[in-house]
Amino acid sequence: MAIVGVGLIGGSIGLALRARGGAARVVGIDRDGARLEEARRLGAVDDWTTDPGEGVASAEVAVVCTPVDRIVGDILAAAGSGPASILVTDAGSTKRRIVAAVEADPRGRAAFVGAHPIAGSERQGVANARADLFEGRACVVTPTPRTPPDRLARARAFWLGLGCRLFEVDPEGHDDRLALTSHLPHVVAAALAAAVPPDLLPMAAGAYRDGTRVAGADPALWAGIFRENRGPVLAALGQFEAQLAAFRAALEVDDPDALLAWWDAARSHRLRFPPAHP
Amino acid sequence: MAIVGVGLIGGSIGLALRARGGAARVVGIDRDGARLEEARRLGAVDDWTTDPGEGVASAEVAVVCTPVDRIVGDILAAAGSGPASILVTDAGSTKRRIVAAVEADPRGRAAFVGAHPIAGSERQGVANARADLFEGRACVVTPTPRTPPDRLARARAFWLGLGCRLFEVDPEGHDDRLALTSHLPHVVAAALAAAVPPDLLPMAAGAYRDGTRVAGADPALWAGIFRENRGPVLAALGQFEAQLAAFRAALEVDDPDALLAWWDAARSHRLRFPPAHP
Repeated sequence: MAIVGVGLIGGSIGLALRARGGAARVVGIDRDGARLEEARRLGAVDDWTTDPGEGVASAEVAVVCTPVDRIVGDILAAAGSGPASILVTDAGSTKRRIVAAVEADPRGRAAFVGAHPIAGSERQGVANARADLFEGRACVVTPTPRTPPDRLARARAFWLGLGCRLFEVDPEGHDDRLALTSHLPHVVAAALAAAVPPDLLPMAAGAYRDGTRVAGADPALWAGIFRENRGPVLAALGQFEAQLAAFRAALEVDDPDALLAWWDAARSHRLRFPPAHP
Repeated sequence: MAIVGVGLIGGSIGLALRARGGAARVVGIDRDGARLEEARRLGAVDDWTTDPGEGVASAEVAVVCTPVDRIVGDILAAAGSGPASILVTDAGSTKRRIVAAVEADPRGRAAFVGAHPIAGSERQGVANARADLFEGRACVVTPTPRTPPDRLARARAFWLGLGCRLFEVDPEGHDDRLALTSHLPHVVAAALAAAVPPDLLPMAAGAYRDGTRVAGADPALWAGIFRENRGPVLAALGQFEAQLAAFRAALEVDDPDALLAWWDAARSHRLRFPPAHP
């Protein structure tokens, strides 16, 4: 089992695989030897290399967990250097462009199943990795008509084996949905953090703390995700802006019924989270 | 010690007073006898009455914790029915209108010091009250030039005795600041909850969960707060909308540097929370 990119997600996959006996041997692959050695010391990988070809040469599965602006190259490298039977899957937060780019390559297409385990943290790095990061969390697998059925079956087994709840949807559907459920909440958290002057923070409490938590996340990671998923993120932002405009209109005319109805509708959505899982 | 309104805040004040030995006897006053009996059973009050005049007749302090649309009447009733030496303070989430209305009344003015302990929860009611709700939380005391100095000193002692960190600012300053640190985060959470269709919630994770948490709060309570603090809330909303517009502009032209800089600025604010407290 090869893990390409041993940060928070890759490291947690390694810890989960080793905790659950999901792999005879886990090899970490990264550009950064110090990070790899930290991953080994923390028990996330058995072994490591900075040479992607060497790392995947005898791998049954390679899971690619690098930033979305590098991930296609890393997926194609794994598909090209691994054995003919290799399954390559990924943990990229967007899917449309990644899957299309990989499927444009014959070896990529033959080996790859796109995936997105919806688990993360505003904390970065393998030092924050946890064996239970995927327990009960959603993982969206994004096959296309060109995905080999055996690879899809193996990808489903791989992500299930980490404790995920599986969803299956095409790459476009994934990106549209995640724009609303994940990317928009990140934009909103950052805009809120930016809008509140830091000198007022001694008077801020739980609503600020929770509403801005993910604004602490890595700028490059999120700039990359927004650019990858530009159209759906702008559409989701439009839905949010419409809600804000409705609130502003109700408050400007000081309409108590409209304010109550607006909050009530929002609240009724929120009370349906978390959904009951079978 | 009289507590007018035994919900989450009033109930927690009662629990804290009784846990810390802050009052020889705590009397609960509310319109709802069942809620009062629940508060007594939970240990938040020693005794209760639905008659405000009887409840404050021998009180040294009355703390009024009713919704902002009823609070002025309850403050004036306590000031009018209590002994001449009574201190009346409150826990209302806005201060400008409340303090002005109370100070327009001579007995109100002589007894009252406005306050706002910044502690709450999206959970309502005395059943969720906790003795430690105010531990280390900010409490803003809002005297004016007309506030009697002895009442101010007693109000400071009262809120300090519940474990609060004290701030002192005039009522207008309080409302401007809280519009940004508390009211805006509530608007944003509700708009986000409203924008995400409930059928997508199985794919939502931590960013959605935390970003929408306070949208579960009571609609009437928040409609009341927004109306009380309309001008500052609209101004805070404008600052937030400007941040969203900057993000939208950067993403529409797909400008990686502008996106990075935007996220970085937001993140640098967030990393200053929570501020270190002396």
